[in-house]
Amino acid sequence: MKNVWHQHVLRARYQETDQMGVVHNANYLSWFEIGRTEWLRNTGIAYRKLESWGLLLPLVDLNIQFRQPARYDDCIAVFTAMTDFSAARLQFEYEVRRIGDALTSPDIQAGQAVTPYGELLASGTSRHMWLNREWKPARIDKTAPEVYALLQTNKQQQGDE
Amino acid sequence: MKNVWHQHVLRARYQETDQMGVVHNANYLSWFEIGRTEWLRNTGIAYRKLESWGLLLPLVDLNIQFRQPARYDDCIAVFTAMTDFSAARLQFEYEVRRIGDALTSPDIQAGQAVTPYGELLASGTSRHMWLNREWKPARIDKTAPEVYALLQTNKQQQGDE
Amino acid sequence: MKNVWHQHVLRARYQETDQMGVVHNANYLSWFEIGRTEWLRNTGIAYRKLESWGLLLPLVDLNIQFRQPARYDDCIAVFTAMTDFSAARLQFEYEVRRIGDALTSPDIQAGQAVTPYGELLASGTSRHMWLNREWKPARIDKTAPEVYALLQTNKQQQGDE
Amino acid sequence: MKNVWHQHVLRARYQETDQMGVVHNANYLSWFEIGRTEWLRNTGIAYRKLESWGLLLPLVDLNIQFRQPARYDDCIAVFTAMTDFSAARLQFEYEVRRIGDALTSPDIQAGQAVTPYGELLASGTSRHMWLNREWKPARIDKTAPEVYALLQTNKQQQGDE
Repeated sequence: MKNVWHQHVLRARYQETDQMGVVHNANYLSWFEIGRTEWLRNTGIAYRKLESWGLLLPLVDLNIQFRQPARYDDCIAVFTAMTDFSAARLQFEYEVRRIGDALTSPDIQAGQAVTPYGELLASGTSRHMWLNREWKPARIDKTAPEVYALLQTNKQQQGDE
Repeated sequence: MKNVWHQHVLRARYQETDQMGVVHNANYLSWFEIGRTEWLRNTGIAYRKLESWGLLLPLVDLNIQFRQPARYDDCIAVFTAMTDFSAARLQFEYEVRRIGDALTSPDIQAGQAVTPYGELLASGTSRHMWLNREWKPARIDKTAPEVYALLQTNKQQQGDE
Repeated sequence: MKNVWHQHVLRARYQETDQMGVVHNANYLSWFEIGRTEWLRNTGIAYRKLESWGLLLPLVDLNIQFRQPARYDDCIAVFTAMTDFSAARLQFEYEVRRIGDALTSPDIQAGQAVTPYGELLASGTSRHMWLNREWKPARIDKTAPEVYALLQTNKQQQGDE
Repeated sequence: MKNVWHQHVLRARYQETDQMGVVHNANYLSWFEIGRTEWLRNTGIAYRKLESWGLLLPLVDLNIQFRQPARYDDCIAVFTAMTDFSAARLQFEYEVRRIGDALTSPDIQAGQAVTPYGELLASGTSRHMWLNREWKPARIDKTAPEVYALLQTNKQQQGDE
């Protein structure tokens, strides 16, 4: 089954650089986070609302491979795909790529499923667990069935492609 | 003379929040920085190029007033205006405002001169000094006359309005 | 009345640098925050506990003057003094200074009232307001009288010196 | 061969928290970085000097497992061990643990080789590559033989234990 990628475009910020003259590695975790927030939004799920319902989605583990450094003011596309999910867990895959000055063509930002393009800078995966406000495991098929249904629908669409 | 404002729209990132449930105050300095980067770009000056020419524009001083907290996932408009400049110095004024879900209407992001709108969250000013690579004062009318000319043109346009 | 300064020593982190080769300006707000947290701790007030009681102390305004850049791995002393307080508000003053490699002499870290020393890098002030969990003004003489008493005692000691 | 751990103690900063009420995941990369900086310092290598000689040590890949969240103001011990090295590469292992209020006993901060203790919050590994200023691979047995010798000595001491 092929990944269905969602794209989000951003610019590398000055504050994100370090004295090596490149984007500091810790910022890729923030970019991954933006990627999955926008993936969820595109799937019909506002992460902001999930938290207001008392659901948290912390990281369980993460790995990341760095190929080429991102530099200040680069246009960066964060490609995000959900690679697995259950009632208790979610798994994402990411590619961070440098693209041309795409921020001037807003339609590219719209975020449809796309094939990753541009120069690959970093890739990685993250696994997450649904927790409730007491930081205990939550089964979203019980606590947020509509969210679970949206994830299922999304997964099926991937299977169809 | 009225300020000519430039607008840049962004979303408050999850990482930018703190445990008070709002955007941490230090991030406003990053947002101001994005505001003046985009102001410069709109004026025809890529800050990235200035640095490649050996020019730096560090902060000399800054003040900021906080009115209302920004929250996660808010659409934020950063309004930036140049309020003063010389061959040695630059001064900016900023307003950070919460706006509706404007990220879906890309034309609003385009950044023309606009009157600030939305809920005022914070305002501030920053003063900067041109330095060369040796961290010594630089006069840009000498070292980067085309940049100086662009700033002058911009200032005159303000006077005309 | 002279300021009674509290000292906290830290090292500039790699991630805190930017591509100008110096500590990025936004980190000074984090250093000020560490300074006042440690000032409060030294006064007998754990900010962590204040929040668990439902008290918040957000920034109302801030100003900062930058003199010299901090660099990676510098030993930095953050000097903090409370310059004013009421039942509703608190005001702090800060000096950020580069000192010798003091992290090897732990007694210097202890934080007694000291006269600022070392090379002045930045100075500033911040004003704060006590709020409750609903983000409404709180009078701490009513809601946390023991905290108010500690601040009063501290202020009187300043007057005595 | 057993890991020889180096310990560095720090406090979780307010700015490092997010609205989940815990330390945001991206800060663990900064803590790992502090851990290896202090490991290198303890081995006799100031990372600051390496960069002044034109050597860079960027991340190639990283993985991290999150067990328990760190919270604001926690005393955190970062345990770091070098697990492999060659003339071209370095590999580190990390454990981030919550300890009691150890910042009052400065001798614990001193950083000798220790057995990790305290509550395990996160663990991970990172791989790094020596590069020169042109961002090309560098062999440190050629470009910085004294650094290479220090790493070798350190590795042998591990074997002896």
